[in-house]
Amino acid sequence: MKIGLDVFGGDFAPVETIKGAILAREALQPPDRVVLIGKKEIILSLLEEYHADPSGFDIVHAPDVIEMGESPTKAFNQKPHSSIAEGFRLLKHKEIDAFASAGSSGAMLVGCVYVVNTIPGIIRPSALTFIPKENGGLSLLIDVGINPDAKADVLYQFGILGSLYAKYIQHIAKPNVGLLNIGTEEKKGNLVTQSVYQLMKGTRDFHFVGNVESRDLFKDSVHVFVCDGFIGNIILKQSEAIYRVLAKRGIRDSYLERFNYELYGGSPILGINETVVVGHGISNAVAIKNMILLTRDVHQAGLTEKIRQALRKFAADN
Amino acid sequence: MKIGLDVFGGDFAPVETIKGAILAREALQPPDRVVLIGKKEIILSLLEEYHADPSGFDIVHAPDVIEMGESPTKAFNQKPHSSIAEGFRLLKHKEIDAFASAGSSGAMLVGCVYVVNTIPGIIRPSALTFIPKENGGLSLLIDVGINPDAKADVLYQFGILGSLYAKYIQHIAKPNVGLLNIGTEEKKGNLVTQSVYQLMKGTRDFHFVGNVESRDLFKDSVHVFVCDGFIGNIILKQSEAIYRVLAKRGIRDSYLERFNYELYGGSPILGINETVVVGHGISNAVAIKNMILLTRDVHQAGLTEKIRQALRKFAADN
Repeated sequence: MKIGLDVFGGDFAPVETIKGAILAREALQPPDRVVLIGKKEIILSLLEEYHADPSGFDIVHAPDVIEMGESPTKAFNQKPHSSIAEGFRLLKHKEIDAFASAGSSGAMLVGCVYVVNTIPGIIRPSALTFIPKENGGLSLLIDVGINPDAKADVLYQFGILGSLYAKYIQHIAKPNVGLLNIGTEEKKGNLVTQSVYQLMKGTRDFHFVGNVESRDLFKDSVHVFVCDGFIGNIILKQSEAIYRVLAKRGIRDSYLERFNYELYGGSPILGINETVVVGHGISNAVAIKNMILLTRDVHQAGLTEKIRQALRKFAADN
Repeated sequence: MKIGLDVFGGDFAPVETIKGAILAREALQPPDRVVLIGKKEIILSLLEEYHADPSGFDIVHAPDVIEMGESPTKAFNQKPHSSIAEGFRLLKHKEIDAFASAGSSGAMLVGCVYVVNTIPGIIRPSALTFIPKENGGLSLLIDVGINPDAKADVLYQFGILGSLYAKYIQHIAKPNVGLLNIGTEEKKGNLVTQSVYQLMKGTRDFHFVGNVESRDLFKDSVHVFVCDGFIGNIILKQSEAIYRVLAKRGIRDSYLERFNYELYGGSPILGINETVVVGHGISNAVAIKNMILLTRDVHQAGLTEKIRQALRKFAADN
């Protein structure tokens, strides 16, 4: 497969993205290849600097860059030759099989919604991230930032999407889906979580285990935590902050180490017609490498098609 | 001053509450006294069991208990002789100066709103908690659970309340108030935080430093983090979970130790006409002791009157 990489996306691009691509190439099996998207001259000179054979990659020239401060929609439309817009164009024309970027997540979302489109029946795409469980393995947290005002029906669908991810990528036969709330009783929470609970209760679309709290985040009992993007983002960045503080204090611990975002590489965007992964803005080479490998794994598991099939089945059943 | 303690509030009441009251008494200076509220016979027998002289306390008999699963409003009204309802009655009649309980926070809120009442001008009471800063000291997080659907004007007032707490209890001359959000730019966040930003921008009621993220929670630059009670509760319980996991793994660290909820004793309820502190349900004796001392400190700083004065001044200025 061909994995498109936005070489100019991320706070430390293009140096770290190129280094990450070189690391990823070493880990990929042919015929899988990384397609480097961005300013060709700079890409070639960096590959030379890091002693990497350019023939190991495909390169697609994209002279523009969408900056972090720009309005995503405007920038996406006004810069059709930016690395992000180019990536989506390649994806649309099947010149790449999947696309990954640690650049403007807003612009990535614009591409997902307006170029790739959501799977029929899906209201909103969502971004998923990973939480290290205390006893090994990873829980899924969905959404982590692209739906800060998710309504009840959208949150319900996050349950479907997270459950399918756990099933087809983590190979968990019957994933436990919990609604992240501030108490376990049915009536707890804010107006939105109270409505979501009613939608999820008794569903046959996934295995709902009820309300769960953030104190349960690291436990084994829940595989998928559903929340709106605001909450997910707060949780994610708090975990990062604790990891950073403790690392700075010289605390070394194998569990704590698993909070290192570099290990996970990014957030798959679920509910759209193609495989897209959005990386963390501060991604270094290791994070970029893992973002590329994550992109491969999501694509090779055929997740998009599984989601499409599941939605057709649910629609037929209901 | 007389500090009322709900002896029957909390998962480990009445044993831990009595033990906590005994610890607190050792730390209090006369004429400060703890008023033990609950089933008198049990209180006396526990004091005897723990070799404490009953004359060191006042005891007010309250034969009923509001259980955690009960509807707070119903229970509060149907059990006027419960330890919580009795505590609020004593507070109303000035027989105690302040009231603390680790019992049903819902019932405590009912007492705050319907017996004590909010300070004129305050829309909703709020609960505050403490976040240990990386370099020492404590940040304030407001609200932590009693306002899961706080609207923009309510969140704005949390900025006022948190700022006054920092000023008068932590003695910070000009506290930095940040709006907890998922990005620092003005337009970031959900619909509510976007509106709050507009209200806070340029305010003269407190020193607003803009949007802050959960990755900033442990930094020195912000003294007060404003968020709705849903977010605050998620943050608080996630911190607890991380503390618990790492403690279980045998990691000992002086900073991490400061995440131990026992140290802080509970959440002062701000914006009401009396001093009320709500403790953590899982409070042990040390947490109860610290809840009692926190209650004393908030009362002795005259926070309620400072808030009342500040609101009158803001009203006159605007």
